[in-house]
Amino acid sequence: MATVKKVAVIGSGSWGTALAVMLQKHGHDVVIWSRRQDAVEQMEKERENKEYLPGVLLPEGLSFTAEREKAVKDAEIIILSVPSKAVRQTAIDFSPYLNSNQVLVNVAKGLEEISLKRLSQVIQECAPQCQVCVLSGPSHAEEVAREIPTTCLIASENAETAKMVQEEFMNPRFRLYTNTDMVGVEMGAALKNVMALAAGISDGLGFGDNTKAAIMTRGIAEMSRLGIEMGGKLETFAGLSGIGDLIVTCTSMHSRNRRAGILLGKGKSLAETLAEIKMVVEGVNTVQAAYTLAKEHNVEMPITNAIYEVLFQGKNAEQAVLDLMSRHGKAE
Amino acid sequence: MATVKKVAVIGSGSWGTALAVMLQKHGHDVVIWSRRQDAVEQMEKERENKEYLPGVLLPEGLSFTAEREKAVKDAEIIILSVPSKAVRQTAIDFSPYLNSNQVLVNVAKGLEEISLKRLSQVIQECAPQCQVCVLSGPSHAEEVAREIPTTCLIASENAETAKMVQEEFMNPRFRLYTNTDMVGVEMGAALKNVMALAAGISDGLGFGDNTKAAIMTRGIAEMSRLGIEMGGKLETFAGLSGIGDLIVTCTSMHSRNRRAGILLGKGKSLAETLAEIKMVVEGVNTVQAAYTLAKEHNVEMPITNAIYEVLFQGKNAEQAVLDLMSRHGKAE
Repeated sequence: MATVKKVAVIGSGSWGTALAVMLQKHGHDVVIWSRRQDAVEQMEKERENKEYLPGVLLPEGLSFTAEREKAVKDAEIIILSVPSKAVRQTAIDFSPYLNSNQVLVNVAKGLEEISLKRLSQVIQECAPQCQVCVLSGPSHAEEVAREIPTTCLIASENAETAKMVQEEFMNPRFRLYTNTDMVGVEMGAALKNVMALAAGISDGLGFGDNTKAAIMTRGIAEMSRLGIEMGGKLETFAGLSGIGDLIVTCTSMHSRNRRAGILLGKGKSLAETLAEIKMVVEGVNTVQAAYTLAKEHNVEMPITNAIYEVLFQGKNAEQAVLDLMSRHGKAE
Repeated sequence: MATVKKVAVIGSGSWGTALAVMLQKHGHDVVIWSRRQDAVEQMEKERENKEYLPGVLLPEGLSFTAEREKAVKDAEIIILSVPSKAVRQTAIDFSPYLNSNQVLVNVAKGLEEISLKRLSQVIQECAPQCQVCVLSGPSHAEEVAREIPTTCLIASENAETAKMVQEEFMNPRFRLYTNTDMVGVEMGAALKNVMALAAGISDGLGFGDNTKAAIMTRGIAEMSRLGIEMGGKLETFAGLSGIGDLIVTCTSMHSRNRRAGILLGKGKSLAETLAEIKMVVEGVNTVQAAYTLAKEHNVEMPITNAIYEVLFQGKNAEQAVLDLMSRHGKAE
């Protein structure tokens, strides 16, 4: 049983809100911080996050604030749940209020633009006084909020820190495994969104389950190649934060990245697609980062290259998928 | 371009018929053998396999017969597409008409009951004069018949034989890779049906994409453990005939094994389920084989054991899935 620790959730998107709901229900004292005072008031008044997690009751006791200091004061665990683009600034803004007893758990999935750093590296730079963990795995927010059985990883370079968070967060419907391979976990989490765009494009073009399964199989191989070159472990890519997250992201309509891919496959432009999805599509930025990292590390990433060409160089999506299906050598 | 070889397809189920349609369209001279004269006449007359591949036109030139000798005479490649239970008897029945220039390509997925042999071993025993290959990978028959881009493996202990079949069968919408790891390919193909039952049960219980992705991730790990113990290669399980086939089978409504699982998850008995699906559900027999092999090889297979208990020992399906979600250790 959890020791009823105070948990702060920074960001009121769907995933942060779902985790807050789950943790509050299971004995924690949770506060959600939003940068927008109007969002705080809406959630407080209506007990629902209408914008990002409609239909889920925000349980009694769950509180809301737009004040940074108030949010993290006395919190033992702080979940950082903002789009990857906002991670650096958010960590900088909160750092003055954080101390060395506090553990930061990042749940954003992506790589920093330009620097191409993993998000835990960015956070560690901005809040070096804290321990940093990463939560990843096949976990649509909508399902966690409804207590659908879910299994994730909690990763940290410090196994003890991961173990502490595991013990606090686990419940019979939300299982956590610990892992110390931060590179493997974060690269898997980021790169799988590229494959979700590819899978969505295939679906949008009207191709089938056979086509998508081939793309996903080649996708995890390509993700592993880059991740291992960067220092990650093969086992991590074969696990929940690799193939597990890839599967859920490529096959579920909950995935924004897959939905964006479907629109692209149907012939919409990138701008039209992003306008229609409204929420952040992490994969679009990750495609650029992965494309650059593949060149830097001299790793062959045909799917990433193809999606890069479709998104940013106007390549025809159908031709890109057919090229992918025919480009490989003759022995597996 | 293929050299317009004669191909015989033994068995007129959905997969055999789909392959026959595809090969006939791409320049081969194909004959389908069915043990039932009435099926031969129905297909000849209506140019449609109403029972197993409705809605797909059987192209001009594709012929049908119920005579064994006529079917395989002069065929250079013979596709064996019968339920795994019928493989031995079919190979015995055809053997007198087969010669050493003919290549047999098995497309059934399963293990022989009682002997627990791989199907290529069974075929080799009954028709030792022929070369045996196995075709596997993410490939729903309905999609191959509609020329949806599909990628599979052709495996043989003899790399030259696999290469010959690859060159004959490939076309721009049907890609084949060669592989010589027969154990890995055949064990992956058989065991994935056990995981499809598990995935279907989870869906039938109303659990979500998160739950299923966790089961599939643990599933491929468990399949690999047994397969490697039996002499297969990890890379094969990470490829098209392992994770690729697992993905397509666990996520598509085309999969009979998954559909059977859904019915079981909704509370139907095994007998009711099999009566409702009508076609062969290979996974049910494979569960028994895998359960026995796991014991023999002393390999931990928690998902296989759980499905065995649900199918044959009356264990409650919901409890089985929840137990699976909570049984594992704490580090991945």
